Amino acid sequence: MNSFGRLFRVELFGESHGPALGCLVDGCPCGLPLAAEDFEADLARRRAGASGTTPRREADLPELASGVYEGRTSGAPLCVLFRNGDARSGDYELFARVPRPGHADFTASAKYRGFNDPRGSGHFSGRLTLPLVAAGVVAKKLLPALRFETRLVEAGGREDAAAAIAEAAAAGDSVGGLVEIRVEGLGAGLGEPFFDSLEGLVAHAAFAVPGVRGIEFGDGFRAAAMRGSEHNDRFVGAYGLTATNHAGGVNGGISNGSPLVLRVAMKPTSTIAASQATFDLASGAMTELSAPGRHDACIALRGAVALEAAVAVALADLSLIARSQEGSA
Amino acid sequence: MNSFGRLFRVELFGESHGPALGCLVDGCPCGLPLAAEDFEADLARRRAGASGTTPRREADLPELASGVYEGRTSGAPLCVLFRNGDARSGDYELFARVPRPGHADFTASAKYRGFNDPRGSGHFSGRLTLPLVAAGVVAKKLLPALRFETRLVEAGGREDAAAAIAEAAAAGDSVGGLVEIRVEGLGAGLGEPFFDSLEGLVAHAAFAVPGVRGIEFGDGFRAAAMRGSEHNDRFVGAYGLTATNHAGGVNGGISNGSPLVLRVAMKPTSTIAASQATFDLASGAMTELSAPGRHDACIALRGAVALEAAVAVALADLSLIARSQEGSA
Amino acid sequence: MNSFGRLFRVELFGESHGPALGCLVDGCPCGLPLAAEDFEADLARRRAGASGTTPRREADLPELASGVYEGRTSGAPLCVLFRNGDARSGDYELFARVPRPGHADFTASAKYRGFNDPRGSGHFSGRLTLPLVAAGVVAKKLLPALRFETRLVEAGGREDAAAAIAEAAAAGDSVGGLVEIRVEGLGAGLGEPFFDSLEGLVAHAAFAVPGVRGIEFGDGFRAAAMRGSEHNDRFVGAYGLTATNHAGGVNGGISNGSPLVLRVAMKPTSTIAASQATFDLASGAMTELSAPGRHDACIALRGAVALEAAVAVALADLSLIARSQEGSA
Amino acid sequence: MNSFGRLFRVELFGESHGPALGCLVDGCPCGLPLAAEDFEADLARRRAGASGTTPRREADLPELASGVYEGRTSGAPLCVLFRNGDARSGDYELFARVPRPGHADFTASAKYRGFNDPRGSGHFSGRLTLPLVAAGVVAKKLLPALRFETRLVEAGGREDAAAAIAEAAAAGDSVGGLVEIRVEGLGAGLGEPFFDSLEGLVAHAAFAVPGVRGIEFGDGFRAAAMRGSEHNDRFVGAYGLTATNHAGGVNGGISNGSPLVLRVAMKPTSTIAASQATFDLASGAMTELSAPGRHDACIALRGAVALEAAVAVALADLSLIARSQEGSA
Repeated sequence: MNSFGRLFRVELFGESHGPALGCLVDGCPCGLPLAAEDFEADLARRRAGASGTTPRREADLPELASGVYEGRTSGAPLCVLFRNGDARSGDYELFARVPRPGHADFTASAKYRGFNDPRGSGHFSGRLTLPLVAAGVVAKKLLPALRFETRLVEAGGREDAAAAIAEAAAAGDSVGGLVEIRVEGLGAGLGEPFFDSLEGLVAHAAFAVPGVRGIEFGDGFRAAAMRGSEHNDRFVGAYGLTATNHAGGVNGGISNGSPLVLRVAMKPTSTIAASQATFDLASGAMTELSAPGRHDACIALRGAVALEAAVAVALADLSLIARSQEGSA
Repeated sequence: MNSFGRLFRVELFGESHGPALGCLVDGCPCGLPLAAEDFEADLARRRAGASGTTPRREADLPELASGVYEGRTSGAPLCVLFRNGDARSGDYELFARVPRPGHADFTASAKYRGFNDPRGSGHFSGRLTLPLVAAGVVAKKLLPALRFETRLVEAGGREDAAAAIAEAAAAGDSVGGLVEIRVEGLGAGLGEPFFDSLEGLVAHAAFAVPGVRGIEFGDGFRAAAMRGSEHNDRFVGAYGLTATNHAGGVNGGISNGSPLVLRVAMKPTSTIAASQATFDLASGAMTELSAPGRHDACIALRGAVALEAAVAVALADLSLIARSQEGSA
Repeated sequence: MNSFGRLFRVELFGESHGPALGCLVDGCPCGLPLAAEDFEADLARRRAGASGTTPRREADLPELASGVYEGRTSGAPLCVLFRNGDARSGDYELFARVPRPGHADFTASAKYRGFNDPRGSGHFSGRLTLPLVAAGVVAKKLLPALRFETRLVEAGGREDAAAAIAEAAAAGDSVGGLVEIRVEGLGAGLGEPFFDSLEGLVAHAAFAVPGVRGIEFGDGFRAAAMRGSEHNDRFVGAYGLTATNHAGGVNGGISNGSPLVLRVAMKPTSTIAASQATFDLASGAMTELSAPGRHDACIALRGAVALEAAVAVALADLSLIARSQEGSA
Repeated sequence: MNSFGRLFRVELFGESHGPALGCLVDGCPCGLPLAAEDFEADLARRRAGASGTTPRREADLPELASGVYEGRTSGAPLCVLFRNGDARSGDYELFARVPRPGHADFTASAKYRGFNDPRGSGHFSGRLTLPLVAAGVVAKKLLPALRFETRLVEAGGREDAAAAIAEAAAAGDSVGGLVEIRVEGLGAGLGEPFFDSLEGLVAHAAFAVPGVRGIEFGDGFRAAAMRGSEHNDRFVGAYGLTATNHAGGVNGGISNGSPLVLRVAMKPTSTIAASQATFDLASGAMTELSAPGRHDACIALRGAVALEAAVAVALADLSLIARSQEGSA
C-alpha cells in the first residue's frame, strides 16, 4: 500500500538497486505545462542536500514516460521514471543478514519474511525520495498561486546547522535536523473536519519521508504549554484577518487564509561508522556492525525538499477536492 | 470527506445540536463480542475528562443500531448512534455571526459559505469525539492482545496538570496539554513503507481529534537534536530485541515489536471567558467577544481517550491489512 | 465493505429486523435544498413496486439525522435514518437454519460463519434498498439538469409485465424483469478511461441492488452480433451530434452527450411458495422448504427505483470528479 | 482515475505512441514466484487475438521494473513496463482532427479539451490491454487454486466465430463478439453485500476493457424472463452443493462455491474501412472518414484474455479482502 490521495493520487515504486524507480501520478488535470527541465530545480536541491558526506553519484534524469503530450499534461496517468545506473550492491548485502540499528533492515525482513530486496535498502532506500520530489514538482505546477519556503532551521539542536553536520560527519556519526515549511497563498476553506483535516493529510504525507519522527503546526508542541488567551489568534480585520499566526494557518482542520506553517523533526541517519551491537538474522548470533561507507550525515538536508514535495502533494489533493465541492448552490 | 481506513473503516456523522450523532464502522470482522455496556468504560473516561469545568450534561447512551446480532458483530456495517437531548442553542447563535478566535467558526463559515450548522459548533463540536471514542471501543475489541496506556503527562507545561487546569479555569482561561500513548503487544511488521507508514496512518487519525497541534513518535522532536550514535536502538538479542526504544516502536514505517510510544500536543480550548477581538461575519464590523459559559478548561483531558480511540482505529486497519498479506508463499 | 464513490460517497447500513437502517452520504456539497418530503416521491415508487404481492407494511419515514440545517445540506456527512417497526421474525428463523435456494441465506452463513443476523434476511434484505433509494434522492438533488426515465420494460419475457407478474403470483411463483433507464442531460466528458469508466462505475453501483444478473449499455448484447458499419453512430453535426445512439451515450468510458441508455436484468424473487430441495445448515440433513408468506412476486418492480438511485449515485460521483478537473489550464 | 482495487491495486499508464506503457500493482503479497517468462503465455494469447487482420507488430517484452527480487515478489509495488517501438503516428493524426464514429476520439477530445495525446488513440488505445493482461498474470499467481476457462463463444451472432470474423474483414468491416469466462475453484464467501458484491467488482473491472457493452452472470438476461421455480438452484447436498448453476456461482453478491460463470458482450471494432460521416473538430465542417489501415476486425479476440485478466484482478482483490476478515472470533 504505497499510494496517497483521493483525486491527485501519487504512487511510488522502485528499489535502490533495481532497474528503475518512479512515481505514478493519477488524477492530474490536463493542460498543465510540464517538461523534464521543470524537475531540475527541485532535483538539484535534493542532490545538494547530500553534501553532508559524499553520496552515490546519481544522474537523476527524469523520463516523462506517460501522461504528457506536446509539453502539457494530457489528463492520462503521468509516470515519471528514473533509471538506476550501475550500483555497488556489495556494501549492502551485509545489511540483509545483519540489520543496522535504527534502520528498516530488521522490520522489512520481518514484514516480508526475507523476500524484500535488500540491495541498497531496496524499496526502503532514501533514493525513493527522488520520485517523491518529482511528484511534488507536478503538484506545485497545479498550485501556481502558492509560495513554498522550506528550510533546515536546526541540526543537532543548533541553528548553525552546517557546523553541526560537519562535526558529526567528521566524527563518523550523524545528526538529526528540524525542517520548517511555510506555504503562502492558500485561501480559506481547504481541508475537511475530522479525518481529512488539513493537518491530518499533510502529516500523513510527511511521514512518508524516511526518518520523520514528529510534525507540528503553528505553535505546535509549545501550544500544549500555553493558555487560550495566549494561543488564540485575535481577528484584526473582517473576513478572518489576524495579526498573529499561532494556529499555523489551520483551525478546525481547515485553512484560514494565513500562511500554513509546520515543522518536521527528522532523526539522525541510522547508518553510521561507529560500531553498533546487532545480530545475524539467519543464525541469531549477536555481532557488531560498522558502516564506514558513503552516507549522508544528516538526512534532513535531502529530506527538506522531499517534505516540501509531500506537503505539496497533500495540498494538491485538497485543492482538487475543494474544487469539486464548489458552485453547487 | 470524513472517513478513515482501508479495511476497518470509520465514518463520523452528526451535529452537536442535531437529532443524533454516531459512527459507522465498516469492515469489522464478524464474531466479536460487543454490547452497549462495552462502551461504558471509555465513555466514562471521556465524561470524566470534562472535569476542567462543568460541561453540558450528556447521557451518552450508545445504541447499536446495526451490525450486531445476539451480542456479536455480524460482519455487516456497524452503526453506533447517540441521540442528542435538549440543548440550549442560544449560547452559540452568537458564534455563527461572530467567530471565536482560534475556533473553527470562521473557517467553517468560509468553507461552507454559511450553510454549516452553527448550533453548538455543529459538526465541528468536540461532542463528535463521542462517536470517535465509540469507534475506538470497537477497534480495541478487534485487537485484544494490545494494551493501551494513555495519560495526560502535562498541562500548561506542568506535570501537575490538575493544578494547572484548575488555575486556568479559575482565571476564566484555558490551558493546553500533552498526551502520551503507549501501546504494548504489537508484533513486528505492522505498517507499510512510505505513504501508509504506521506513523503516517496514526498521525492522520490523531489529527481528527479537535485541537491537536503536533504528534511525535519515540524521541520525536528531541531526535532532531540527537546524533545517530545516541538515537539508534542497538539490538540486544536476536529477532529484534532492543534495550532502548528511541524509535518509539517503528522503523521505516513498520512496527518493530517494541511498544509504540507517541505524544500528542493539544492546544488550549479556544472558547474562553476573556474578551477577545473578532468581527461580525455579516457586517464585517469589528467587535469583542467573551464566552463566560460552560466550557472545558483543558480539552486534552477529554481528548486523551479520543486520541487513544484514533490510534486504535488506525491500528485495527493496519492489523487487517497485515492479515490480508499473510500466508501467500 | 459497503460503500461506494470517491467524492460523493454512500454507505448503507442496517438489518431488516434490527433497530434501524439508513444511508450515510459523505462528500455532498453544501447548500442543496433537502427536506424529508423530497424523499416521498421515490419512496412511494418503491412502495408501489411491492404490488406483486402484499408486502410487509413499512412506514418509511426518513429522518434527516445529520448533515441538513435549515432545509439545506450543510456540507457535513448526511445520515438518513429509517426506524424498523415491529417485525415478525418468526417466519425467517427457519431460513437461518434451512437456506432458501437462490437466496443469500447460504452464502451469508458461509461468509460470516453463522454470525450474520438472519432475521428477515438481516443485512441482505431487499429492505436495504430503502436507504439506497434515499441516497439516490440526494444524488438527484445534486444533478438537477438530469432527467431520469426508468421503467420495467418486460417481466417474464413479456411486455405486458403486469399480467406476467399476476400470473406468477397466482401460481405461488415469481418472475424476473427487465428494467430500462434513460438519463438525459449529461454533457460530454463524464467518466474516465479504463477502470473508472462511466459504464464500470454505473455497473458497479447497479449490482448493489439485490437480484441483478446483468447490465448492458446502448445496443448491449445485441452489439456482439453486429458489424461496425451498423453499430457506429455517425456524426450528423459538429461537436458530437449523432442521429443514432447505439452506444447508449458512452464512448471509451466517457459520456458523449447523447442520452445514457442502459438495461438491467433482474432475476425472479428466490423466495417462493413452491416446495424446493434444500438442507439443514446444522445437521446437514436434506429437507424441503416452502415459503408461502408475503413476498414480492417480481423484485424488478421495486428494483427499478433502486436501480435509478444506484445510477444517480454513480453519476453524482462522476460529476463531482469532473468538476474537480476543470479550469486548470 | 485509473486504478482498481482496495488491497490488490492495479493502475494502468501509458500511451500507444508514447515512450512506454505499463501497470503498477500495489498490495501484492511477497513471496510469489514471478519472472518475465510467466507473462509469455497470456501475452501470446493477446497477440494471437490480433489475427482478425494484420496488426501492428509488437515486441511485448515485459520488464519487471520493480517489486520482484530473485524471482519472487518482494512485497514492494510491482511495476511491469513495456517499451513502445517506433510507431507510425501519421495514420492517427487525422483522427485527432476528425473523430472516428463509435470511437473515443470525440469524447477524449471533449473531456481533455484537446490536451489528450491523439497518436494511435493515445491512452485510449487497445494497446493498454497489454499491461492489463500483465496485471492479470500477477493476479493469477496469487490465485493458484483457480482455473480460468475463457473463450469467444460467438462473433457476429454466430458460433463459427472464425468465419464471421473473416467475412467481416474481407468486407472491410468489423464484427462484435461474445466472451464467456468460467472460473472454477472459488470457495464460498467471496464478495460483499451491496456495493462490493462479487458481480459489482467484476463488472467494474471488466468494463475497463475497451469495447465492452454488457456483462451478465449465470442465466443473466435470460433470468429476466424466467420464473423463480426455474431459476433457483436447488440444493442437492449439504453445505451448498447444487446440481444446476443458474446463479453463475453468486448469491447475494457472495460466491457460493459453484463455478463463477459470466458472459461479456463486446462491440465491433469502431475503426473500419467503410466511409463514415463525421466532422472536423477544429472547423466544425462535416466530412467523410475511411480507415483502410491495419485494424483488428473483432476486438473480442484480443479482448478475451484482457477480460480474463480483469476478472482475475477483481478476484485477487476480493480474495485478499476475505483473508483480512478471517480468524477473528
